[in-house]
Amino acid sequence: MKVTSHEKMDLLAIASNHSINEKNVDQQQKHQLKHEDATVSAYMSQCFISVSVADSVLSAKGNLINQLEGEQIPTYLYVIDDEGYLNGILPVKVLLTAADDLFVSDIMRQSYFSVSPEQPRHDVYSLINHSGMDSVPVIHFGKLVGVLRPQDIAELIEDENTLDAHLQGATLPLDEPYLSTSPITLWRKRAGWLLLLFVAEAYTGTVLKAFEEQLEAAISLAFFIPLLIGTGGNSGTQITSTLVRAMALGEVSLRNLWAVLRKEVSTSFLVAMTIGSVALIRAWILGVGIEVTIVVSLTIIAITVWSAIVSSIIPMVLKRLSIDPAVVSAPFIATLIDGTGLIIYFEIAKLVMTELV
Amino acid sequence: MKVTSHEKMDLLAIASNHSINEKNVDQQQKHQLKHEDATVSAYMSQCFISVSVADSVLSAKGNLINQLEGEQIPTYLYVIDDEGYLNGILPVKVLLTAADDLFVSDIMRQSYFSVSPEQPRHDVYSLINHSGMDSVPVIHFGKLVGVLRPQDIAELIEDENTLDAHLQGATLPLDEPYLSTSPITLWRKRAGWLLLLFVAEAYTGTVLKAFEEQLEAAISLAFFIPLLIGTGGNSGTQITSTLVRAMALGEVSLRNLWAVLRKEVSTSFLVAMTIGSVALIRAWILGVGIEVTIVVSLTIIAITVWSAIVSSIIPMVLKRLSIDPAVVSAPFIATLIDGTGLIIYFEIAKLVMTELV
Repeated sequence: MKVTSHEKMDLLAIASNHSINEKNVDQQQKHQLKHEDATVSAYMSQCFISVSVADSVLSAKGNLINQLEGEQIPTYLYVIDDEGYLNGILPVKVLLTAADDLFVSDIMRQSYFSVSPEQPRHDVYSLINHSGMDSVPVIHFGKLVGVLRPQDIAELIEDENTLDAHLQGATLPLDEPYLSTSPITLWRKRAGWLLLLFVAEAYTGTVLKAFEEQLEAAISLAFFIPLLIGTGGNSGTQITSTLVRAMALGEVSLRNLWAVLRKEVSTSFLVAMTIGSVALIRAWILGVGIEVTIVVSLTIIAITVWSAIVSSIIPMVLKRLSIDPAVVSAPFIATLIDGTGLIIYFEIAKLVMTELV
Repeated sequence: MKVTSHEKMDLLAIASNHSINEKNVDQQQKHQLKHEDATVSAYMSQCFISVSVADSVLSAKGNLINQLEGEQIPTYLYVIDDEGYLNGILPVKVLLTAADDLFVSDIMRQSYFSVSPEQPRHDVYSLINHSGMDSVPVIHFGKLVGVLRPQDIAELIEDENTLDAHLQGATLPLDEPYLSTSPITLWRKRAGWLLLLFVAEAYTGTVLKAFEEQLEAAISLAFFIPLLIGTGGNSGTQITSTLVRAMALGEVSLRNLWAVLRKEVSTSFLVAMTIGSVALIRAWILGVGIEVTIVVSLTIIAITVWSAIVSSIIPMVLKRLSIDPAVVSAPFIATLIDGTGLIIYFEIAKLVMTELV
């Protein structure tokens, strides 16, 4: 069954008919990207059902039925005392199957995972994502101040993914939806990173000026500058984007550094051989002479391997320094490889082309 | 409250004590990234509770309690007949509050949203993400073949985000966790895109060779090549990464093309002025003479605006052609801007530096 536009309209009709969907439409309108340093308090909800430790199972059941909002059945009720301290959590499943003459205190659970309203989103993301946790109580000095429901957790995870996507593009995340963001705001979000990258990249000018003599002696070396540094940046970007995502998903951590480095250096040799042979053909087509052709091929190999080493280590080092590795974007890697790649290029040229020394 | 490593151990202890978490640990071990062209069938679950249209509310309640697995209470039961055809869905909330002497047929809902097992993940992602839907029945020719539970939907959304993250790094997504992927497989996932980008980027050599005369006459023009094309690529990447994410979140669609273009061109003027003034200072520091300084500043402005136009249009055009706009990665944009940016650079140089013509 394909979803046709007719069915989409049905879907909209369903959405407007039923309370759960109305509630979600509200929630969606409310949803606005939280600032990158948002804490748990920005995501927690006050929509939870609480019972008292002294309640009977019968009255807790009645409480549950009466207080249900929307269609979703919560996984837990929260057992709080008169002052708002959390005494325990009560799985709804346990409640539904318990005999009516028992008390909440007989069936509640006293071990549970909780978070604080001031915890940064990023910390909680790493803890909650993949833990399979459904809802998490938010506790401030022992008192229950809110609950992260499944939809709140989904929102938190989505915002963290959006932050990573923006960091990977070397820009700051937007605080509101794209279409409502003004050019001035966009400029403020982008100019900082761009200037930083510009200043770092300006170093390439110094490198090229230092090799001005070699460049004048063999102008054809200049033809390959964008190709060589571009390829170095691209192969590095492939590595960091894979690594940064694997780290966000919790698949890779600092203790895997050597495994990662071994894997990436081996891979980069395979990649270097592939691209190196194509580079040989390319240089030959441009007709730049045998020496420049050799220099270009050797440089591609050296830059690819160098780029693999840099790109595997940097995200891990940042993680170690408690910096979100997602800042290692394609532009970041390109800037790093451009300057060092040029030095590699001209040093190889000086080695191979004896007239350049 | 900070989560200390002690608390993390508590969390692990809790996880191993309770069935819901055990189930989720199983699920996590089972979880393996689905292939990029996975369909709904790869995500749907057989864990749902079905009732018959002729059941009484009392027996349906018993059914619910007996068949509950784990701690989560499903939002819906599925009403199916003897042949497995879906007759309707029954919100658990409605069931719990209904009088025992009613029948399922009295209280079930006959309008609902469903998907097919063969639908591609990407299609379903756009429909489900942000819809607030909690679980979705999977129907094949009228028969219920599975259900997308909240955790299945979360997994589907996460895999789609992982795909986008990999595409943005100009590499193919991995089919297994990073650490279990061999160098040969990594090479296969990366070499294709890298070769494609290399061949496209090779065009820069042709451009530079065409301007060989100008380059020999003013070798200092070469010093700024990496800086100019790098900055063009970076400012374009900022735009595409923001746009691609906004499109994935459903905030921007094709009908916003003009709004996007207007916004991005205005922003790029602000960015161009900022970077242009810094470029002026940079060229002056390198001491390349007034003419080259002017050429570099003008080129930065032209490339930034040009890059904004290209980077706003391309993701939208790809969307129009039903290609996932996430393929417009930083390396993709850089490759596109590098060749055209060099042409802009040398044409401006020919205009300003009369001795070059």
